[in-house]
Amino acid sequence: MRRSVLLFDGALQAFRRSPTYSQLLIFFAVSGGGLVAYADGKSENEELNLSQMPARKKVVVLGTGWAGTSFLKNIDSVTYDVQVVSPRNYFTFTPLLPSVTCGTVEARSIVEPIRKIIKKKKGEIKFWDGECLKIDPVNKQIHCLPCVVPNSDGGGEFIIGYDYLVIAVGARVNTFNTPGVLEHCHFLKEVEDAQNIRKDVMLCFERANLPNIDEKEREKDLHFVIVGGGPTGVEFAAELHDFITEDLAELYPKIKDLVKISLIQSGEHILNMFDERIGNFAEKKFQRDGIEVKTGFRVVKVSDKAITMKSKSVGEVSESYGMAVWSTGIATRPVILDFMKQIGQANRRVLATNEWLRVCGCQDVYALGDCATIDQRKVMEDISAIFRVADKDNSGTLTVKEIQDVLEDIYVRYPQVELYLKTKQMSDVLDLLIDGKADAAKASIEINIEEFKKALANVDSQVKTLPATAQVAAQQGHYLAQCFNKIKACEDNPEGPLRMTEPGRHRFKPFRYKHFGQFAPLGGEQAAAQLPGDWISTGHSTQWLWYSVYASKQVSWRTRVLVVSDWLKRAIFGRDSSCI
Amino acid sequence: MRRSVLLFDGALQAFRRSPTYSQLLIFFAVSGGGLVAYADGKSENEELNLSQMPARKKVVVLGTGWAGTSFLKNIDSVTYDVQVVSPRNYFTFTPLLPSVTCGTVEARSIVEPIRKIIKKKKGEIKFWDGECLKIDPVNKQIHCLPCVVPNSDGGGEFIIGYDYLVIAVGARVNTFNTPGVLEHCHFLKEVEDAQNIRKDVMLCFERANLPNIDEKEREKDLHFVIVGGGPTGVEFAAELHDFITEDLAELYPKIKDLVKISLIQSGEHILNMFDERIGNFAEKKFQRDGIEVKTGFRVVKVSDKAITMKSKSVGEVSESYGMAVWSTGIATRPVILDFMKQIGQANRRVLATNEWLRVCGCQDVYALGDCATIDQRKVMEDISAIFRVADKDNSGTLTVKEIQDVLEDIYVRYPQVELYLKTKQMSDVLDLLIDGKADAAKASIEINIEEFKKALANVDSQVKTLPATAQVAAQQGHYLAQCFNKIKACEDNPEGPLRMTEPGRHRFKPFRYKHFGQFAPLGGEQAAAQLPGDWISTGHSTQWLWYSVYASKQVSWRTRVLVVSDWLKRAIFGRDSSCI
Repeated sequence: MRRSVLLFDGALQAFRRSPTYSQLLIFFAVSGGGLVAYADGKSENEELNLSQMPARKKVVVLGTGWAGTSFLKNIDSVTYDVQVVSPRNYFTFTPLLPSVTCGTVEARSIVEPIRKIIKKKKGEIKFWDGECLKIDPVNKQIHCLPCVVPNSDGGGEFIIGYDYLVIAVGARVNTFNTPGVLEHCHFLKEVEDAQNIRKDVMLCFERANLPNIDEKEREKDLHFVIVGGGPTGVEFAAELHDFITEDLAELYPKIKDLVKISLIQSGEHILNMFDERIGNFAEKKFQRDGIEVKTGFRVVKVSDKAITMKSKSVGEVSESYGMAVWSTGIATRPVILDFMKQIGQANRRVLATNEWLRVCGCQDVYALGDCATIDQRKVMEDISAIFRVADKDNSGTLTVKEIQDVLEDIYVRYPQVELYLKTKQMSDVLDLLIDGKADAAKASIEINIEEFKKALANVDSQVKTLPATAQVAAQQGHYLAQCFNKIKACEDNPEGPLRMTEPGRHRFKPFRYKHFGQFAPLGGEQAAAQLPGDWISTGHSTQWLWYSVYASKQVSWRTRVLVVSDWLKRAIFGRDSSCI
Repeated sequence: MRRSVLLFDGALQAFRRSPTYSQLLIFFAVSGGGLVAYADGKSENEELNLSQMPARKKVVVLGTGWAGTSFLKNIDSVTYDVQVVSPRNYFTFTPLLPSVTCGTVEARSIVEPIRKIIKKKKGEIKFWDGECLKIDPVNKQIHCLPCVVPNSDGGGEFIIGYDYLVIAVGARVNTFNTPGVLEHCHFLKEVEDAQNIRKDVMLCFERANLPNIDEKEREKDLHFVIVGGGPTGVEFAAELHDFITEDLAELYPKIKDLVKISLIQSGEHILNMFDERIGNFAEKKFQRDGIEVKTGFRVVKVSDKAITMKSKSVGEVSESYGMAVWSTGIATRPVILDFMKQIGQANRRVLATNEWLRVCGCQDVYALGDCATIDQRKVMEDISAIFRVADKDNSGTLTVKEIQDVLEDIYVRYPQVELYLKTKQMSDVLDLLIDGKADAAKASIEINIEEFKKALANVDSQVKTLPATAQVAAQQGHYLAQCFNKIKACEDNPEGPLRMTEPGRHRFKPFRYKHFGQFAPLGGEQAAAQLPGDWISTGHSTQWLWYSVYASKQVSWRTRVLVVSDWLKRAIFGRDSSCI
């Protein structure tokens, strides 16, 4: 409880300060995308390719989401000529998208024009409204399609050259090639999605209320199906339930009892990226609320009238529905898939970067946020090199002193080592290397390459991929901008770990994600949260924590005031049920 | 000035009270639709066809605009079984639509769910979300198409029977069959129109800002054309100018000087439904603001790139444009045109009602608001009947006493008589009848039918058609509901004027419009207003009057709080420029 109070205080203090993106560490998760293990021989040339820096280098950023905006807020736009290309001229505070679907918060309250954000910077940042269609890493340029304007022929594509490219285009929805999903389901990734859902919920109610249709059709119209039991799907189900019970039941008294909300989850539990206790709490709450949670079901087909799913125990079943929201995970955008082909990553599903966020197999291109994953270098790939670097006297064996000298560098370069030690409840890699030997003997022990390999053989099992969350994206944007900003200083005084395959040190420390916790709002003024240290909090107080944190983390005072006043508005007047 | 202060006080008091629709007398105009004179032999059977009233009579209302909503708020829904059909499940405060186009006010702030409005009534009112496709006056039923729901086959039409039908479907936009208007122009009648305009203004700016287009194309993209110099067009031009100078100029510094706003008006002056002084004031203000007012131009064609117009002095000219808004007037909806054919009004352009709002040539059907006009009975059509009714002793001549006895009834039945006397600066119809004769002789004068006809020969020149404004629609809704409510009382004690062609009195007084004034906001915190008695007010104080009146006239406390907080929000944070 103490930690909760501290966090709450911190949130309130942050609310009083104007937030900067560097503090944007949002407690929530987008359902994670698939990931495939990937390994190839990579150059250690991972950081910014400096080469003397004449005049202002051109940095082109793709995207205005969490990663892109965080980068823009932190990049030194005096030193660099920064340009941004995005089909959206605004930043969206995506964690509040589920609230927009039912009018708890208005769409305009969670967006901030990107021009307002970049106008605050010292140096000018240019914004171009368009979508990147092709990345050409050979000629160092990108091809973009301008935004669509009525009464214009579109004007054809425009091309922008770059010295450094920062890809932060996010991901697209993953339908897992399920037939009918694109045609019949709503998604919940963009502001427009949330607005469309809001309108369609009302249309379903209006239709079910018409005089000439039978009970069965009314039930169909009022069956709301959510596919995907991740935080987004769960929060939408909760919002919808609140909207119906708190606002619509009164306005549609005759059909309110026909409403059914179904949450379909392929796994055994919903919210399975959280601690089990949270999933259980959510399932129990949903059961009390009458939200049907169907776990172990995989949707195999969606038609205009029914949604077909399969489970091991029941087999295939079809259910008619009025509206369906698909929220099962993310996939790579076509422009990135095309780029991956060009740079030899064709056999991967997600764009890989090294630990410094540089795209593997490509110079001067960086990728962050949901469009890429960090391909953590394995210890066992470098094991001989590590041994060589540690073995300063070239004796063929390592002394404890020699090991201690490179320990910090190993921890920084290979975070899986520390994680592995944690699972073994060891405090030091030495414990692993000289495990079982008497303490007294430690100082004189020498370890050969085979012993070294054997001791570290399993550490790579702890290589973790980061979740596709706003929190990760925002931290990556901040990290990369800092690297760009301190490139000159780090050229002279590298702050990174020892290079293993080349002499010298890495200029920068690799990116390290700091997890600040994650929320799952469950409706009825209740929420669940998993805070750092796997500390679990559920119930009404957690909802208040949620309010505080989300208010404090807004990108501008405008959105902060609007979001808070939307909450007040809802509390006083309820949610609007107009079909607009 | 005194009147202005009084009105201001009144507005503030009204703001403190919860408003009822009966007070909704809004000070603004929708550009007036065309009207054609129409006369046929009409029955005097104009009022509610009572016939004993068994159980609850079914009153079906079409539309949830000003007229329909005002009727719903005032009808006694305990006595009547009231049902409403509309494709919009909300009421829109249309005078603020121009403010929504640029984000001065949010769309959600000016709409109120119709279910919330009717829920406050004692008796239940049913709402069906659908569009009336056909009125069948023979079988007394209407055919409706349900609202469109995704993932449904539409469900086919539904039919509703009625005892009384109240048509308040409003009007559609009048393109005057100008080619290209439907395809390439925005309108400004619905909330969606305003939202689309807002998005397209931003897209035009984003496109004009792209790196690869030439100066000429930028100028094209930033040329905003408004066709129609009525209150709506003028207010939109003013809003757009404010949005650009107050918000966008700062965010788009490089292209801000390329912006051009053109207001095209076919007449010699803009705002020509107002006093000339207001038109002049507006034109001068727009000139200072750099808004080009092109008077005397008629648009003859709109293509995707250019708008072609004609004037007597210049001939035909074409101008390229980025966005065009068409706001020239209203026309009759197809469902009403079809209905007019069925009831013998096929040769008219607008549905005609009598002075009690009953549709001419049809029993138990009433029409109000923009979808109909009142066909004021002419004095000269009834002149012999009037003479007969007045000539109680059947002497073939009228004494002054006899005339005085029917004077009040003539004033009520034929309001043009009073208007005519006003233009002649006479106080009494007697002045007209015995004009030129010595006062002393008055008492003994007798007037024959020829003298009577001659004296009243020109009074019908003062027959006025009402403007297509919210103010008129709201008053008509209130009036008709009151008639329905007091039908039993008036059966016994008719309160209307003498019938001229039949014995007895009319049960109700005919509808009489009370003009409370009209505003024209001109941007830059300035407005013009024409108040009752042709009192003119312009400038900043008028804008404050506008704020007070519009805040006070909101349909609910919710919208009132939202509209006022939107104004505050704009003053503090400016308008949002996100393309959503």
